[in-house]
Amino acid sequence: MSTSVDTNEREEGLAFRPKFDASGLVTCVATDAATGDVLMVAHMNDEALRKTIASGEAWYFSRSRNALWRKGETSGHTQRVVEMRMDCDQDAAWIRVEQVGAACHTGRKSCFYRRIEDDAGGVLLSFVDADRLFDPDAVYKK
Amino acid sequence: MSTSVDTNEREEGLAFRPKFDASGLVTCVATDAATGDVLMVAHMNDEALRKTIASGEAWYFSRSRNALWRKGETSGHTQRVVEMRMDCDQDAAWIRVEQVGAACHTGRKSCFYRRIEDDAGGVLLSFVDADRLFDPDAVYKK
Repeated sequence: MSTSVDTNEREEGLAFRPKFDASGLVTCVATDAATGDVLMVAHMNDEALRKTIASGEAWYFSRSRNALWRKGETSGHTQRVVEMRMDCDQDAAWIRVEQVGAACHTGRKSCFYRRIEDDAGGVLLSFVDADRLFDPDAVYKK
Repeated sequence: MSTSVDTNEREEGLAFRPKFDASGLVTCVATDAATGDVLMVAHMNDEALRKTIASGEAWYFSRSRNALWRKGETSGHTQRVVEMRMDCDQDAAWIRVEQVGAACHTGRKSCFYRRIEDDAGGVLLSFVDADRLFDPDAVYKK
């Protein structure tokens, strides 16, 4: 159980003290440094955080593959980190990046290529900014 | 276990099928519609998603308080949703919002008021955009 002294230090201090979840991860949001668009939401473990900070390129931890992962290591679509920030309770990071090519494994620039629309008959998605910059079959299934 | 048919439908279909985690939550990133800055990272359960979509104001689910929460219900610092998007695998939402006042409970506009710096002696945080727009003691401890 954290105390209020701990909470104050984590929120107002200058020590880098990531608050990892039960799986040892923090959430990371990557935005396009030029446009402000959200490119992706992923996770970092301690090693991914430290490699990202040290290298200036984004590293993540894949929950589905249970493995550390340098963004773009297969596709070549790397992310150069322009700025990296931590949130108030240090369980989320925000990186502003220069994205080479596309961030999403489907080939789109951003993973957020569908808008949520409130329709009379219910909630629907509609494509927006959904052009593919690469063919995922060609990139990942070689 | 999801099949590739399920995955394809979730990624390429127009059905709204949020992929909730074991706690029944998706991640939600709120950005400032005017500047593109990330304001906060939080979570939504099914009810929070649906209330946000229906009302055009951000609702979240607080993991620490285990409760549905309309953003700004205590502070008055509501978020009007300009656009809402879902990501490729539908486990994260992105809302572009008009923030009334400040998003962060510490009184700052954004929760991301500290930059991560790679110092020779280790990793440090430094304040950036850290002016308080309100006094949290006055707002939350009345």
